[in-house]
Amino acid sequence: MLELENVIFDVDGVFTDGSFLYNQNGKCYKRFGAHDSDGLKLLKKHKFNLLAISADSRGYKITETRMSDMGINLELVSESNRFKFVSDRFDLEKTVFVGDGIWDSKLLKFCRLGIAPANATDFAKLSADVILEHKGGDGAVLEATEVIIKRMNGEKYWANYLIENW
Amino acid sequence: MLELENVIFDVDGVFTDGSFLYNQNGKCYKRFGAHDSDGLKLLKKHKFNLLAISADSRGYKITETRMSDMGINLELVSESNRFKFVSDRFDLEKTVFVGDGIWDSKLLKFCRLGIAPANATDFAKLSADVILEHKGGDGAVLEATEVIIKRMNGEKYWANYLIENW
Amino acid sequence: MLELENVIFDVDGVFTDGSFLYNQNGKCYKRFGAHDSDGLKLLKKHKFNLLAISADSRGYKITETRMSDMGINLELVSESNRFKFVSDRFDLEKTVFVGDGIWDSKLLKFCRLGIAPANATDFAKLSADVILEHKGGDGAVLEATEVIIKRMNGEKYWANYLIENW
Amino acid sequence: MLELENVIFDVDGVFTDGSFLYNQNGKCYKRFGAHDSDGLKLLKKHKFNLLAISADSRGYKITETRMSDMGINLELVSESNRFKFVSDRFDLEKTVFVGDGIWDSKLLKFCRLGIAPANATDFAKLSADVILEHKGGDGAVLEATEVIIKRMNGEKYWANYLIENW
Repeated sequence: MLELENVIFDVDGVFTDGSFLYNQNGKCYKRFGAHDSDGLKLLKKHKFNLLAISADSRGYKITETRMSDMGINLELVSESNRFKFVSDRFDLEKTVFVGDGIWDSKLLKFCRLGIAPANATDFAKLSADVILEHKGGDGAVLEATEVIIKRMNGEKYWANYLIENW
Repeated sequence: MLELENVIFDVDGVFTDGSFLYNQNGKCYKRFGAHDSDGLKLLKKHKFNLLAISADSRGYKITETRMSDMGINLELVSESNRFKFVSDRFDLEKTVFVGDGIWDSKLLKFCRLGIAPANATDFAKLSADVILEHKGGDGAVLEATEVIIKRMNGEKYWANYLIENW
Repeated sequence: MLELENVIFDVDGVFTDGSFLYNQNGKCYKRFGAHDSDGLKLLKKHKFNLLAISADSRGYKITETRMSDMGINLELVSESNRFKFVSDRFDLEKTVFVGDGIWDSKLLKFCRLGIAPANATDFAKLSADVILEHKGGDGAVLEATEVIIKRMNGEKYWANYLIENW
Repeated sequence: MLELENVIFDVDGVFTDGSFLYNQNGKCYKRFGAHDSDGLKLLKKHKFNLLAISADSRGYKITETRMSDMGINLELVSESNRFKFVSDRFDLEKTVFVGDGIWDSKLLKFCRLGIAPANATDFAKLSADVILEHKGGDGAVLEATEVIIKRMNGEKYWANYLIENW
């Protein structure tokens, strides 16, 4: 079983399906999914440090509002600075990274556990340890939570925990 | 054949695909599907008591508007209080529950008929009696209606009823 | 080959995926697809009478705006009045009907050619002559156009016509 | 290996899933995807001339805003004028065209490399050299980028380039 302390999430394509709505004034809406906050709550109860990072400056305020509603910190980190940003702040050996883009691949490769949603780019999937069955914005964060908690506590722990807390 | 009197619906992931649109001010829109009101009308004609419950306080007004347009009552019930809320008010032996989330599982298990849409979490599916072919917001409520009415009246009743009322 | 003069379309689930976005004030947006206007233009060039009918009174203005942009007339017709409305105005033997809902089934059955998109309800599919590979709002109207024009002019006509008009 | 200098993109169904949201005032929003700007940046680094063309006059301002945010020029070109517009300005032997509609087929056929997203019409697919696994608005532009860069530089170049620029 793994000793994991930190879970870092890319946002677009992980908490969303990667899409956004535009009107003539620019990026207006992102589409988030329902089960993600259930996942984050379970990770918090299990004492993980959580952080969301995003390179999307135009959609930052939208992302910030959603992350704030779910109670997870968010940092704006450019794609080229992403690996340095995370490795400066976290022990990668105790860190999970969840991401889908081509520039997420280095973190997926060098973190202790790299997780890619079903909708991830081929290059992200090649670099990840686990490829989820669910897509971003459609259950990926909850499934990642299940994977992480099982890796820490064993396969049977998940269902037992949910039943005990029914 | 079953004696069923009440149908309780979770909302997000059942009447919707679980997603919602955010802008920088918060949750703005939910995506509902077309066939659900056809299903609710048929359940009402067959004299079922109907209730929708939701734990989504931030999206409550959106949900309330849609449920009101379809003529079904809605209650805001937290996930931890969900089982007690339903079991205090309804005879579970005569109750159908339709839900998709991990915290819907206890009701799916202990109601007479537990129904999970195709997009439900694995844990909800494990606890349900019936897993639908349709997803929430994309035909799940109409298919649940068909399942319920057939369990009450037999397999042949559904098509015959629809043809008689063409 | 068939002699067909009229094509009647249901709107929700045919020109859209059946979904709509709600906010706290009600139904706000419907999602339409790109290839549908290409289909309608081809049907007009082939001299078909076209009509769209919808039972959605709350979303009527949205539907009206889209249908007007595509140059097709729209009528608000309740589900229970749908069969009478069409059979009073059109010779069903020369009429195509495209629909997806349970109350579209009688028209799908009794029109000369009944066409159901891939996302149609099981009961609509049972009543239709043709089940499309494409979903509503995602190519169904263009595929229906191809089906109709081939039934009128033969299988080879479609590709030849498109190449001649490149 | 091919000598390619220009990449021309149709917009709707390539950068989007082809859908748009309507309210009673008309076309309001289009849905764009996350990985497309990663693809365009890579094409620019490889010195391609890029152009987006669209026949959608009602949604032109929306499209213009998104294309401007991604730094690619956009021209409004009607479907009937599309082939002439491109062939007058570009050497088709050194041009890639990415498109999905029935009226994109001539360009798909006569450009050196014609690429159709997974959601393209059958007729566009018949005319294309490459059919992508990804849909428009859901990775098609990034996958097209991978195809183009591999055709220019060989199969192994893509992964090597991404790893070198991690």
